[in-house]
Amino acid sequence: MALRLIQRIWRGFQPGTSSCRQSKRVSSFQPQVQVTGEMVEALREVVGSANVSTAMAVREQHGKDESMHRCRPPDAVVWPQNVEQVSKLAEICYRHSVPMIPFGTGTGLEGGVGAIKGGICFNLTHMDRILDLNVEDFHVTVEPGVTRKALNSYLRDSGLWFPVDPGAPASLCGMAATSASGTNAVRYGTMRENVINLEVVLPDGRILNTAGKDRRFRYCIRKTSAGYNLTSLFVGSEGTLGIITKAALRLYGTPESIVSAVCAFPSVQAAVDSTVEILQCSIPIARIEFLDEVMVDACNKFSSLQYAVLPTLFLEFHGSDQNVEEQVQQTEEITQMNGGSKFSWAKDQETRNKLWMARHNAWYAALGLRPGSKGYATDVCVPISKLPEIMVETKKDLVKSQLTGPIAGHVGDGNFHCIMVLNPDDLEEVHRVKEFTERLARRALALHGTCTGEHGIGVGKRKLLEEEIGEVGMEVMWQLKATLDPKNLMNPGKVL
Amino acid sequence: MALRLIQRIWRGFQPGTSSCRQSKRVSSFQPQVQVTGEMVEALREVVGSANVSTAMAVREQHGKDESMHRCRPPDAVVWPQNVEQVSKLAEICYRHSVPMIPFGTGTGLEGGVGAIKGGICFNLTHMDRILDLNVEDFHVTVEPGVTRKALNSYLRDSGLWFPVDPGAPASLCGMAATSASGTNAVRYGTMRENVINLEVVLPDGRILNTAGKDRRFRYCIRKTSAGYNLTSLFVGSEGTLGIITKAALRLYGTPESIVSAVCAFPSVQAAVDSTVEILQCSIPIARIEFLDEVMVDACNKFSSLQYAVLPTLFLEFHGSDQNVEEQVQQTEEITQMNGGSKFSWAKDQETRNKLWMARHNAWYAALGLRPGSKGYATDVCVPISKLPEIMVETKKDLVKSQLTGPIAGHVGDGNFHCIMVLNPDDLEEVHRVKEFTERLARRALALHGTCTGEHGIGVGKRKLLEEEIGEVGMEVMWQLKATLDPKNLMNPGKVL
Repeated sequence: MALRLIQRIWRGFQPGTSSCRQSKRVSSFQPQVQVTGEMVEALREVVGSANVSTAMAVREQHGKDESMHRCRPPDAVVWPQNVEQVSKLAEICYRHSVPMIPFGTGTGLEGGVGAIKGGICFNLTHMDRILDLNVEDFHVTVEPGVTRKALNSYLRDSGLWFPVDPGAPASLCGMAATSASGTNAVRYGTMRENVINLEVVLPDGRILNTAGKDRRFRYCIRKTSAGYNLTSLFVGSEGTLGIITKAALRLYGTPESIVSAVCAFPSVQAAVDSTVEILQCSIPIARIEFLDEVMVDACNKFSSLQYAVLPTLFLEFHGSDQNVEEQVQQTEEITQMNGGSKFSWAKDQETRNKLWMARHNAWYAALGLRPGSKGYATDVCVPISKLPEIMVETKKDLVKSQLTGPIAGHVGDGNFHCIMVLNPDDLEEVHRVKEFTERLARRALALHGTCTGEHGIGVGKRKLLEEEIGEVGMEVMWQLKATLDPKNLMNPGKVL
Repeated sequence: MALRLIQRIWRGFQPGTSSCRQSKRVSSFQPQVQVTGEMVEALREVVGSANVSTAMAVREQHGKDESMHRCRPPDAVVWPQNVEQVSKLAEICYRHSVPMIPFGTGTGLEGGVGAIKGGICFNLTHMDRILDLNVEDFHVTVEPGVTRKALNSYLRDSGLWFPVDPGAPASLCGMAATSASGTNAVRYGTMRENVINLEVVLPDGRILNTAGKDRRFRYCIRKTSAGYNLTSLFVGSEGTLGIITKAALRLYGTPESIVSAVCAFPSVQAAVDSTVEILQCSIPIARIEFLDEVMVDACNKFSSLQYAVLPTLFLEFHGSDQNVEEQVQQTEEITQMNGGSKFSWAKDQETRNKLWMARHNAWYAALGLRPGSKGYATDVCVPISKLPEIMVETKKDLVKSQLTGPIAGHVGDGNFHCIMVLNPDDLEEVHRVKEFTERLARRALALHGTCTGEHGIGVGKRKLLEEEIGEVGMEVMWQLKATLDPKNLMNPGKVL
C-alpha cells in the first residue's frame, strides 16, 4: 500500500461518513462537523447539564495549550465524572461521527488539544482520584485529573515518589499520552518506562485495560510476555487512539540522600563534554540539566539568583549518603577536567527547591526577556555523542538568525530546548523562527536524532515525523490508526 | 465487534484464500497448504539451491523447540543471507499465501516454531553479523543469528556488556520476539526495556525500521515522543507480526565490581520474604534467584556442588567496590533477620561462572532427576507481594499432585518456574501435569499475575491469554494482527 494513497484517503475523510473506506467516494469537501442540539442534549443526559458547556468563552479556553498554535475551539466541552460516563459520551460521538479531544491541564506545547475538525472536548479534570496505592509493590493508580504535583504531595509520607517531572504541573495521564519525561529521565526513564497499565476508552466506547483485566490496577506485575504490548502503544499516542481514563504508575523509594549542585563552564562544549563523560562513566546521576548563558541570565533575573552568566549544569545526585558522596566525587573530577567551576551546593531541601523552581520557571524567565512576547520551545533529541556538535551549531545559528532562544536541556538524554521568544505580531520574525526551528529539527535528523524528545508531534511536526520515520514506518502508523479509530474521530489532525 | 466473531473468522481462515474477509465464504475445511515445486524453485532463485531444503530430517529439526510441544515440521526451510533476501522470500510467500515461521536457535519453551499450518521456516542463523557497536552511546546492532553469548564475547574488551540473560544460548532477535528476560532483569530490565530499534520484514515483504529510518541503527537516541511506539509492538509478538532481521540493543558499562553469594533458608517463605524486603529497601541487586530444596539437590548432583539442600537464594551485586560492599551489608542484614545462613561467597570470576553455570543448567539438572524424562517449564509471574503466598501453595500442590517439579525462579521479578519432569509416554502423568500447570496459571491470574513472565504464549497458552487479557484486550490484539498480517501468514496459530 502506498503511503500517499492511504494519507490521501485518510486526510480526505471527514467525520460524518461512516468509515474511511467510504471517503474514496465522498467529495473532497465536506462541511465542518455540526454538533446538533439533539446531540448536546444526549451528552447532557449522560453527565448532567452542569457538566456540558457550549459557551464560547469555555470553548476558547479548551481550544489551545501553552504553545503558540492558534486556538481551535471545540463545539462543546464535557466534564465526565467516571469512566462509564466517558464510555457513554464516546458512544454518542461515535454514533454521530463527531471528533473527540481529550483535555487534561492544557499544559501541552504542540497544540495537541486544538479541535481542528471541531467536535467534543473531554475535560477529564473532575476524575481526580488517586486509587490503589500499593506500597509493597511500588505502584499507584491515578485518574486523569491527577497532576504529578498532587501525586507527589499525596505520597509524601509513604516513603515513595514518582520521578517523571516535565516541569509543568501536568496531569499524569496527559504525560502518558504525550510520552513526557523531563529532568529525572536520565536515571528513572520517561513515561514509557514508568506506565505499567492504562485504562483507555476506545473511540466506539469500549473500555480497554492494556495490561489485562481491571484488577490489574490494584496489583501490578513487573514483567510479562503475554501478548502484544498494548500499554506502550497508547503511551505517546497523543489522544489519537483513545482516551486514557486511568494509569498505573511505577513508584520509587525516596532516596536516603539528595544533593544538588551547580557548575559553570567556560564554553557550551565543555559543559556538554562533561555530560557525555559522566554518562560514559555510568554514574547514576538523577538530574543533569544544561542552561546556556542567556538562559542563566534570564533565570537570575526572573528568580533572583546570582549564578555566573556562563554555560551551566544543574546536577542532582540520589542514593545513600555514602553512595551520593562517591557520585559527587567522580562527577567533580570530570567537570574540573573540563574547566568547570567548583560546585555551588544545594543540600538542604529549601535551597534545592529554589534551584529547581528556577529551572522549572525557565520558560517564564525566557519570556521575561522580552515583555509581551510569546514563546515556542523546540524539542530535538540526539545521540549523546552528537550533543556537543548540535549544540554548538545551534548557538551559531541563533546568532546568525538574530533570534532570542535561550537554551535549557535535559542533556543527559541528549534532549534540549531552545525557548524561542518572539513577537507574534511580527510576521517576519515568526517566519524566521519557523525556519530556524525546522533547520534545527533537520539538523537533529541528520545526526540520527528525533524532532521531538518529549513534547510530541501534535499539530505542527507531522511533516517532520514523516521525514524521521520513513515511508514504511508511516504506513504502519497509519494502519494502526485506521484499525483502532476507523472513523478518524480521536483527536484528528494530530501526530499523523 | 464481538471477540468470538473475529476469532471465528480468523481461525476459519486458511492460507490459500486471499484475505481474511473471504474466509466468511469459504467452507470450514481447507486442505493443508501445498508448497508447490514452482514455489520452491522461486525460493531457490532468491537464496540459491544450497539454502533451501525440503528434506524431512531438516524439516523435523525445525518443527520443534526445547518444549514438549510436538514437532510440526514446515514444508521447507530457507536460509536467507541478508534482509533483502528475507524481503523477497516473504513476497513470494505472501503471493502464494503460504505461512512463514521465523527460526533462530530453537531454544524457545512454548512451541513457537512449530509449523502448525505448514509453510516456510526462515532459519536466520546465517545472518550473524554484529554491526555498529557504538561505545560512546552505549548500543550495538545485531543480526538475528547473533546469540547473547556471542555478543558478550565480542564485547569483552569494550568495557560494555548486554545484561539480559535467559540462561539458554538464545539469539538476541529471538529474545526480542519472545520478550525474554532472565536472571539480570531485576536490575537491568527485560528485552522490552533494552531493545531500542528493530528492523522487521512485514508479511508482504516491506522492510520496517521501528524507530525511524535505517541510519538509526548506527546511532540511537535515548528517548523520543515521535509517533506510535512501533518497537514495543514487535517486542514480544513471537513472530506473528513480522520477521525481525536486526535489533539495536542498549548496552551497559561493565561493573567495576561483581560479587555473587549463596544463602540458604529454613523455609520457602523465609527466602521469598527476604526477596520482597530487599526490593522494598531499593537495594539495586543485579540477580536474586530462588531454588527450592529439590532444585538445589538436582543442581548439586548435576554440577558437582555441595550446597545445603534447603530453599536457597543465589545473589549477585554489581557496582563500585564501595557500593557493592554497602549492598552486601544491607542484604545480609535482611537475610539474617529471616533466618538465612551466612553468605557463601563467589567473588572471583571462576567461582562465579561455576555458580551461574549451575543455575543455567537447572533445566538439565531437573531432567537428570529422572533419566529418560522430558521437561516442561511453567512461567507464572505475580506481584512481588503475592510471591510468598503463591510459592507456598504451589509447593503444597506439587506434593498433593505427586509430581516432580523443582522450582527455580527470578523471584526479584515475581517470576518462577516449576520444571515439570515427566514421562511423556505416561498419559495419566501428562494429564496430571497439564492440570497442575493450568491450576498454577489460574492461581497466578487470581493473584493479579500473568501466565507468562518471559517464555511467551506460543501455542499452548492461548486460552490462558484470553482469561488474562479479557475480551476488549483480545479484540484489540486481534485487530492489530489483522491489520499488519491480513492473510494470517506470520507464524499462524501462535499467541492469538
